[in-house]
Amino acid sequence: AATHKIAVLPGDGIGPEITAACLQVLTEAGRAEGEEFVYTEAPIGGAAIDATGDPYPASTEEICKASDSVLLACIGGYKWDSLPNSQRPEKGLLRLRASLNAFANLRPAVVLPQLADASSLKREVVEGVDILIVRELVGGIYFGEPRGIEVRNGERVGFNTDIYSESEVERIARVAFEAAMKRGKRLCSVEKSNVLEVSQLWKDVVIRLAGEYPEVELSHMYIDNAAMQMIRNPREFDTIVTGNIFGDILSDEASMLTGSLGMLPSASISEPGKPGIYEPVHGSAPDIAGQDKANPLAMVLSAAMMCRYGLNLPKVADRLEAAVTAALDAGYRTGDIMQPGCTLVGCRQMGEVLLNTV
Amino acid sequence: AATHKIAVLPGDGIGPEITAACLQVLTEAGRAEGEEFVYTEAPIGGAAIDATGDPYPASTEEICKASDSVLLACIGGYKWDSLPNSQRPEKGLLRLRASLNAFANLRPAVVLPQLADASSLKREVVEGVDILIVRELVGGIYFGEPRGIEVRNGERVGFNTDIYSESEVERIARVAFEAAMKRGKRLCSVEKSNVLEVSQLWKDVVIRLAGEYPEVELSHMYIDNAAMQMIRNPREFDTIVTGNIFGDILSDEASMLTGSLGMLPSASISEPGKPGIYEPVHGSAPDIAGQDKANPLAMVLSAAMMCRYGLNLPKVADRLEAAVTAALDAGYRTGDIMQPGCTLVGCRQMGEVLLNTV
Ligand SMILES: CC(C)[C@H](C(=O)O)[C@@H](O)C(=O)O
Ligand SMILES: CC(C)[C@H](C(=O)O)[C@@H](O)C(=O)O
Repeated sequence: AATHKIAVLPGDGIGPEITAACLQVLTEAGRAEGEEFVYTEAPIGGAAIDATGDPYPASTEEICKASDSVLLACIGGYKWDSLPNSQRPEKGLLRLRASLNAFANLRPAVVLPQLADASSLKREVVEGVDILIVRELVGGIYFGEPRGIEVRNGERVGFNTDIYSESEVERIARVAFEAAMKRGKRLCSVEKSNVLEVSQLWKDVVIRLAGEYPEVELSHMYIDNAAMQMIRNPREFDTIVTGNIFGDILSDEASMLTGSLGMLPSASISEPGKPGIYEPVHGSAPDIAGQDKANPLAMVLSAAMMCRYGLNLPKVADRLEAAVTAALDAGYRTGDIMQPGCTLVGCRQMGEVLLNTV
Repeated sequence: AATHKIAVLPGDGIGPEITAACLQVLTEAGRAEGEEFVYTEAPIGGAAIDATGDPYPASTEEICKASDSVLLACIGGYKWDSLPNSQRPEKGLLRLRASLNAFANLRPAVVLPQLADASSLKREVVEGVDILIVRELVGGIYFGEPRGIEVRNGERVGFNTDIYSESEVERIARVAFEAAMKRGKRLCSVEKSNVLEVSQLWKDVVIRLAGEYPEVELSHMYIDNAAMQMIRNPREFDTIVTGNIFGDILSDEASMLTGSLGMLPSASISEPGKPGIYEPVHGSAPDIAGQDKANPLAMVLSAAMMCRYGLNLPKVADRLEAAVTAALDAGYRTGDIMQPGCTLVGCRQMGEVLLNTV
């Protein structure tokens, strides 16, 4: 039996509730497979601002770096919306990603048959959708320099730099090719190389790397076209690789295909041996926080991704995913995914349901 | 009876066919209202590359600048895809926009009741959608300097600059506020101010300008969230204002709501008194070029936008739009919008149908 050190960041809003439900289930799934998880909680985002004035305090950074994996719930809320950018919860998230060098954000958009009707798209369009978006997470316009607001020719200008180096593109493309090999062996690289030099370099490097993966069918698509095809015919996509800002937009769009943001996990992985960050795609939903209405399933599925990709515990991951499927098959639903004929449960009760089958 | 000088750019692929159909109808609609259009054709895009080696030759630029309005069909095709970027058809389009200072791209996404079932989204989600996207078209990351590909620290890097000045934001925001005043009086500014300084300046300026438009209800949305809401609940949007790259992505996504790219017009307007560019949103469809299968309706609706916004001929615009509605109501459809029970027609026949009612 091995011990796994998990940094747990409950964050804001519904974060603490879904974290509590998730950890219970994770502990139990581990026990069933002879694995032990040791949790160290630390504040991030708004909670950290309130406690320390800093959305990503040094103590949290230390705990994360000393862990095998970081399990994050969600951050942000109206309360901190008027602070200057450098002191806002989001900044804590960006600094967390950068400090762990979590460069590869894996966001699956899978339409579950039980929930296919929840989508705003027609069932026949989304049924069977199974897309993995691999988004570069610590480069591009999010972090590029120079950046700022300054006076030029007598007026203010705001500017940012979208920049990628060959090695940055290569490492994210490699993750994507490897992922595609384990999936449908089709990779679509999304950029805007008809306009942007940063995208031309991106495309060049992806094409060069493709030589190492002859089994993967590589295609290229402009981001505007990808945003269209994602709605028109999402099943044409298998694995997608793209930069930070395009990935931000495209993965949020793709999440809507499923009609159930409360179901979507993500993994942000770093170099081998370094801790990755596992977190649900949904936000902190301050409007329902503390009311036992939140959906813990995306966080449980994020914990499953952690076990599979970060800790190499595929059996624990299987257990977690099977428990989620079983709960859905048994008709249990939180409010956000409620359907006629199903049983409405709160966050805590959903946790209990999972605990009984995991 | 006034005379209006129109620079006509048929471009590539299906461009010449839809242009022929469109001009016939436009001429007739003008005649009915005592207005005369004088057309001067000029090459752009691939056709211009083949003829002169330049996707936007000086002679074309002169003709455009000397006209009251520019009516463009569509550009591009496989044939020119392997040329270096500076010599590709798209570059001609970007240079056309810049040379005319066509800074405000207006892209309506209207779901026509006759075609609501063509969308990949559920009818109840898209029915009644009527969105106007106002996209900044001659600034931002498309044109920002510095840009390029160079060697730094022993490897190549590609970089672009996303940049907006206060005056650039103000003029596009003003167009958007004015447009919102004539529509539902709701304006949503889309940016990524939680991460980007260029977006913070954008948001600042939009908020400042809002003081001049107290009747307009202004909201702000991050681009990733907007890409989600566009699918989840598109009816929440009335008028949207955003920068060049976000507008490129969001307007293409929005066009898919309608399920009929072949129906969507656009206008790119400049300072008062200067010629604007009017063009369909769809591409040049090289696969069906020259087969009399193309849908000319988006170009006819673009000509209507030209009459309304560029030439101040609302009656001619009304005639063109009414002719399109009548053709659809009578059940005529080109292949791209064909539905059971309708009459399939080619590009030329659709033009004839319009000609008979305009
Ligand atoms: C909160 C924000 C900074 C973040 C991002 O833009 O990366 C979020 O949208 C995400 O996708 O995780
Ligand atoms: C062809 C391309 C350069 C262009 C753009 O990105 O602006 C197109 O996508 C558009 O939206 O008109």
